[in-house]
Amino acid sequence: MSNGKQNKTVFTIFGGTGDLTYRKLLPAFYNLFSLYKMPQDFEILILGRKEYTTESYIEIIKPWLKKFTRTNFRDEVFDRMSEHIQYLVINFTEEADYALIKDVYEQWGGVQQRLYYLAVAPQFFAPIAHSLKNSGILDEKDSHQVMIEKPFGVDITSAQMLHQQMCQAFNDESIYRIDHYLGKEMIQNIMSVRFNNTLFEGIWNNLQIDNIQISALETVGVENRGAYYDQTGALKDMVQNHLFQILSIVGMEKPEDASAYDIQSEQVKVLDALIPIEKGKLREHLVLGQYSSGTSSDMTVKGYLEEENINTNSTTETFVAMKVFIDTPRLAGVPIYIRTGKRCDRRSTEVAIQFKAPEGILPNLLIIKIYPDEGIYLRFNAKKPGTTPEVVPVFMDFCQSCVYENRINTPEAYERLIEAAFKKDKALFTSWAQVLSSWKFIDHLVERINEEQMILHPYPSGQSGPHLADEMLRVDGRHWIDEEHG
Amino acid sequence: MSNGKQNKTVFTIFGGTGDLTYRKLLPAFYNLFSLYKMPQDFEILILGRKEYTTESYIEIIKPWLKKFTRTNFRDEVFDRMSEHIQYLVINFTEEADYALIKDVYEQWGGVQQRLYYLAVAPQFFAPIAHSLKNSGILDEKDSHQVMIEKPFGVDITSAQMLHQQMCQAFNDESIYRIDHYLGKEMIQNIMSVRFNNTLFEGIWNNLQIDNIQISALETVGVENRGAYYDQTGALKDMVQNHLFQILSIVGMEKPEDASAYDIQSEQVKVLDALIPIEKGKLREHLVLGQYSSGTSSDMTVKGYLEEENINTNSTTETFVAMKVFIDTPRLAGVPIYIRTGKRCDRRSTEVAIQFKAPEGILPNLLIIKIYPDEGIYLRFNAKKPGTTPEVVPVFMDFCQSCVYENRINTPEAYERLIEAAFKKDKALFTSWAQVLSSWKFIDHLVERINEEQMILHPYPSGQSGPHLADEMLRVDGRHWIDEEHG
Repeated sequence: MSNGKQNKTVFTIFGGTGDLTYRKLLPAFYNLFSLYKMPQDFEILILGRKEYTTESYIEIIKPWLKKFTRTNFRDEVFDRMSEHIQYLVINFTEEADYALIKDVYEQWGGVQQRLYYLAVAPQFFAPIAHSLKNSGILDEKDSHQVMIEKPFGVDITSAQMLHQQMCQAFNDESIYRIDHYLGKEMIQNIMSVRFNNTLFEGIWNNLQIDNIQISALETVGVENRGAYYDQTGALKDMVQNHLFQILSIVGMEKPEDASAYDIQSEQVKVLDALIPIEKGKLREHLVLGQYSSGTSSDMTVKGYLEEENINTNSTTETFVAMKVFIDTPRLAGVPIYIRTGKRCDRRSTEVAIQFKAPEGILPNLLIIKIYPDEGIYLRFNAKKPGTTPEVVPVFMDFCQSCVYENRINTPEAYERLIEAAFKKDKALFTSWAQVLSSWKFIDHLVERINEEQMILHPYPSGQSGPHLADEMLRVDGRHWIDEEHG
Repeated sequence: MSNGKQNKTVFTIFGGTGDLTYRKLLPAFYNLFSLYKMPQDFEILILGRKEYTTESYIEIIKPWLKKFTRTNFRDEVFDRMSEHIQYLVINFTEEADYALIKDVYEQWGGVQQRLYYLAVAPQFFAPIAHSLKNSGILDEKDSHQVMIEKPFGVDITSAQMLHQQMCQAFNDESIYRIDHYLGKEMIQNIMSVRFNNTLFEGIWNNLQIDNIQISALETVGVENRGAYYDQTGALKDMVQNHLFQILSIVGMEKPEDASAYDIQSEQVKVLDALIPIEKGKLREHLVLGQYSSGTSSDMTVKGYLEEENINTNSTTETFVAMKVFIDTPRLAGVPIYIRTGKRCDRRSTEVAIQFKAPEGILPNLLIIKIYPDEGIYLRFNAKKPGTTPEVVPVFMDFCQSCVYENRINTPEAYERLIEAAFKKDKALFTSWAQVLSSWKFIDHLVERINEEQMILHPYPSGQSGPHLADEMLRVDGRHWIDEEHG
């Protein structure tokens, strides 16, 4: 532990013995540390209920880091970083315990930049904020930032309540809402590609674009998240946050400058422009599915209803396909197809922009691959070699994760987000206005779903969702841009 | 030799013992034959002054074909093709000898499609046409086509005279003017890429394009063409025909259909729209160079004036760099830089389209590689992997000649042109209007060069021309898109 100094940056992690901390946060800290990207003077205070000492905690995290750091793990680096880690046993639901936290801060002394990372279930966000405030910790003249993970409420009412509660302790400027998709390299790259290339800028509009597809398919099932997932479903777990984030970046106008405020304002305009699904038209716009047993990666797997902690009569959707429109001058009339699902035939998050094409000509296609491959893929038409004038599609593929060996240079999302947070760059976080706007659309949709008694379509594990999801595009004369990018 | 039939296609080659016949025409016939692309019933009549028999001629061409066919040479295929070859000793400047040719045609009998390929020096085009007519050969009710190679005159007056003379024997529709660049795969591909891709179509205009560069550099000197070249120079040997062909395809509007007439009409419109260089402005628009001794491919090489058959005081240019504009709604105001030279530092023909870009951002670049590599190259901007928002250029490269193993599927220019000719597709040939329009511009330019006593700049062999060629772009704030595509 280093001595107290002015301008120490203190990271405090609530939920320090949880999966998120072990798999994501601490590896991210290690990567930043080994790349000399951590603040000059920093401490990491880990809070947990388990009776560890700092020494025993450091022993426990070592194998996790060995496994999950993207940069080479070196004992020497780990040892140096460990000097900045302190473990403190507290029960974060016990307000009295916060005095212990305060003691540690005081012991470090000086003015501190403090980041409180709430790696805990969302029902604890407000109580922790409350206790931090009541214990006087937030009164100090330090800079305070709080980082929270989704879900930010389960609908607009609960989101507003959470927001009000958080705002009793922190001002909105200090609340960093994490959408880890925003930390992904290629999502950031959508903006770079759009706004730094005449090539794409000039055709990014409804005169040239035929349709947009945002697809996030997983092969895994609910895994050990059954209790949470069954209360949530794909619409609220994926669409309301991650996929709407992507949508807003794909559809936004160029921000005046690179400030968080400008970027987020432009994103909110897109979300605000989402056209609510009309009464009675729901079936043209939405398909909900739930996986049944089937085959995934050559293994027979259970159906959703057989999974652990799932209500046996659950009507929670594990798959959503939807067609939406945004009413902006740029993209009005361009169908935006969104799709996400668990236990699908592939693991792939990507955005596809399909351009208009004359009859008989295969359309130009721009695909931004977000995960697990990162890259940009372009399909255009050229002459088939030979003496015939036949036109054939050709492919250009720029693979970001290939170019830089083993992704060693592509930071993990959490690494990027933590760095952005202590640098107080909010552009990679979700603004309150974004939360509000996306809940507004989703709440309205959920209302429709209930009113119109939307049917949940089972699909066998290992397929790309219910057939109706394909049918939704087929009636429009389109199809999902699939794996082979056909 | 096969028996006479209706609808036999007869190729008659004047200059059958020349380099062009051995290196290009016969290998092209072999390729077409081995790919079953020759007409069902055909004969090749070879005319030459040398006292060969058909048998000895066939022995002579065999090693040439072994060396120059792109498809695998097989004795068995060669033997079958040889059955369709007949050698006839004639002096094509002796009108009396044409009776011998007529005899052969009569012996074959029936209605014939006849292609006369004049693989001879241009001063013989008119005499041969004249003799063909006078001998009554063209009177027959067969279909007659004549194929001639550039140069089509040395200026507008001589071109018109040649045209009138040819038209006394053939109607213009039957005259196939070869510009072998038009037979190149990637020049055909410029049209495919432009007109079949929303991506490029939408940005192919003066709002988006900053400048266009057409570059054809060679490493060789004049070789054994000194006598011809010293009378001609780079401007007339390369720019007036090959590079203006490329220019017109790059600049043209989409033809209504794929007919030769429509395509050529659109090309002519571009040539007609070339803005003549203003009086007194020549030095801003033109740089002429002549290679001096230097190093080429690690060998010390002679300067132009020391080459064989070159006038020791020659002021013939072996290098041209020029800046032109075309006055069309699409490209008005876009500088088009054209460059060609012998004994340069590389062997490369390509078109580069550089798009406009905001200050500080590297512009998008589309490069169509014509020779020796064939392909399409695109440079655009993406985010540099990492936590900084830095933008870096990335590259997509589609290599046509790589995709199809060893170019086995890409026909040689002459193969494509011969096939187009017997199929009577004139789109790959130069129309009379194109010849006229390009001479008009070049004649005017030559007049200016003489008036303003344009200086010829020597450049050492192995460089990319005189420094002034770089300077011409530098004063415009631009540079030649070089090898590394920077």
